Amino acid sequence: MVSASKARPCLVRRWPRLVLLSLCAPAPPHPAFKINPICHSSPRVHNRGCFDMHRSRHGRSGMAAGKLGILHPGDMGISVAASAKNSGNDIYWVSEGRSAESRARAEEHGLLDAGTLPHLVELCPVIVSVCPPGAAEDVARSVLAQGFRGMYIDANAISPQRAVRIGQMMVDAGATFVDGGIIGGPAWQPNSTWLHLSGEAAQQAADCFAAGPLETNVLGGDIGQASALKMCFGAYTKGTTALLCAVMAAAESLGVRADLEQQWSQNGSDQAAQNARKVRNVTAKAWRFVGEMNEIAATFEDAGVPGEFHAAAAEIYTRIAGFKGASETPALDDVLAALLQDTQNTLVEENEA
Amino acid sequence: MVSASKARPCLVRRWPRLVLLSLCAPAPPHPAFKINPICHSSPRVHNRGCFDMHRSRHGRSGMAAGKLGILHPGDMGISVAASAKNSGNDIYWVSEGRSAESRARAEEHGLLDAGTLPHLVELCPVIVSVCPPGAAEDVARSVLAQGFRGMYIDANAISPQRAVRIGQMMVDAGATFVDGGIIGGPAWQPNSTWLHLSGEAAQQAADCFAAGPLETNVLGGDIGQASALKMCFGAYTKGTTALLCAVMAAAESLGVRADLEQQWSQNGSDQAAQNARKVRNVTAKAWRFVGEMNEIAATFEDAGVPGEFHAAAAEIYTRIAGFKGASETPALDDVLAALLQDTQNTLVEENEA
Repeated sequence: MVSASKARPCLVRRWPRLVLLSLCAPAPPHPAFKINPICHSSPRVHNRGCFDMHRSRHGRSGMAAGKLGILHPGDMGISVAASAKNSGNDIYWVSEGRSAESRARAEEHGLLDAGTLPHLVELCPVIVSVCPPGAAEDVARSVLAQGFRGMYIDANAISPQRAVRIGQMMVDAGATFVDGGIIGGPAWQPNSTWLHLSGEAAQQAADCFAAGPLETNVLGGDIGQASALKMCFGAYTKGTTALLCAVMAAAESLGVRADLEQQWSQNGSDQAAQNARKVRNVTAKAWRFVGEMNEIAATFEDAGVPGEFHAAAAEIYTRIAGFKGASETPALDDVLAALLQDTQNTLVEENEA
Repeated sequence: MVSASKARPCLVRRWPRLVLLSLCAPAPPHPAFKINPICHSSPRVHNRGCFDMHRSRHGRSGMAAGKLGILHPGDMGISVAASAKNSGNDIYWVSEGRSAESRARAEEHGLLDAGTLPHLVELCPVIVSVCPPGAAEDVARSVLAQGFRGMYIDANAISPQRAVRIGQMMVDAGATFVDGGIIGGPAWQPNSTWLHLSGEAAQQAADCFAAGPLETNVLGGDIGQASALKMCFGAYTKGTTALLCAVMAAAESLGVRADLEQQWSQNGSDQAAQNARKVRNVTAKAWRFVGEMNEIAATFEDAGVPGEFHAAAAEIYTRIAGFKGASETPALDDVLAALLQDTQNTLVEENEA
């Protein structure tokens, strides 16, 4: 692990160094959960789940079997749940208010239905949140409102500031908070998707997924580190794709798309074809990148670098969010039309006014 | 050449379709220059210069030998001048007010010194402008102020709107305007740098560089096309590098740079090393990318896509503009410190206030 930047103090922080949240809970912890700070066994050696492991190792036989609640098992969340299940835990979810599609997904992967959130909170000493970034704080609040005092792992693409806020809320209520950030697509293959974790209980959170295929990586004790890493990584991958969408839409609007594609194809390069694929393929996920781009913009501004890249990226993904659930990958012309739609609408409005 | 986007009308234009500037000059043309619209010979077949070619082909023996003026021969301009010289033209420049470094560069490449701008305008029926984008309009204006009526090739990284404005100014004064955009680094190798040209006289402009190594490409008759292509191409290459600078600076500021580099290095990838090189190497050119980023932002806004990507990129390049002329490539830590400097200064000011 490269450690150059860690060896010296950070150059700048607009907000104080990420708060190391106290884990001294002011309220009694979840009956089935207790933090064990000396548990630092390596991943992939346990196969009976994080709580079974704690029980067998430390003789706390009164502890419940590993029960982990997942909010809410979408494409990514279901793969996170599957790794926790592989690792010996019983995985619960809340069917109340969810779609038939979610129910089918949960059943397919053997998740247990807690029915309602109060029941999930009662059953599970560990809850993992995987949801759209904009919903992260509300989801956390709703869990606390049910009296949750266990370990809450927020694995969402949120700014470090927001992670600190949610963490503080958890600690204030007597729960334990672990900051998480997922890098990669849904985790169905080993060595392809990483759950980075930070906070004092990060290792225990990692142990819940020890059998993979989701990889875990414990970053350190500071809440916000995992979210910061996720923000910076996503900033480049999703930022450059959004920029590419904007470039191709601008070229289309200006009547030079064919010339641009030809320039990209100089010397036998397949960049033009690659770029067209990237723009077409991002449409399926664009709707859920919007919130993440806004979180990244806020993160960058707070870190002292311009947030406009991702403000623009949020706008780009908003314009093509309508391709969510499309039965097939749209044609490039249709994507570019959607990217320019906003202007077209504006022009129509202007003409009508 | 891919022509899909050309075959159908543009989806959107905030400004009217790029003006096809009339070449009916209201004032008499430069005595040594006359447009020959039927001259469409291929590049690389002439070796005596664009004007010699016209004379020998069409028997206009009264025409002067090919004399081309270059404003101003920097690293890129000198290579453009070299290709025009290879193609049989005498190349003039203006030493008045320029640095010793420019003089040395011009002498090394056999440019002839016209001394002053009025003398250059008197001598040369063709003038090529290669300057910082922010200076393009002033340079054009100063040439016209000397009574220029020849062919003016603007090869600068300017928005199509600005190209149209300069072009209109030229035509109004009785000169001929060719819109140009250079893609690639200084043109010392064949097949590496392209001068795209548009406007009715684009082919004649291309003929001035027929012997290379600068490659020319005639796009069409619309002023603004060449600039639009340049803007869209540069938007992606320079935009993604600026974004990378911002990402690494944010990671440094947030204390997760080492973690980000490790994530980039997963599965044996050398992306971390590549990214560090990109950020360090862009510092030498950052100072002259600032104006281009502003032009791209304006181009994008006009084309109906967000301009914020490049507003942010302009800010990034401004912060590292101070590395201009550095004797060696700076260390990554120094680049990141410069990228975060602005914030640091702000913080100091805030603390002092």
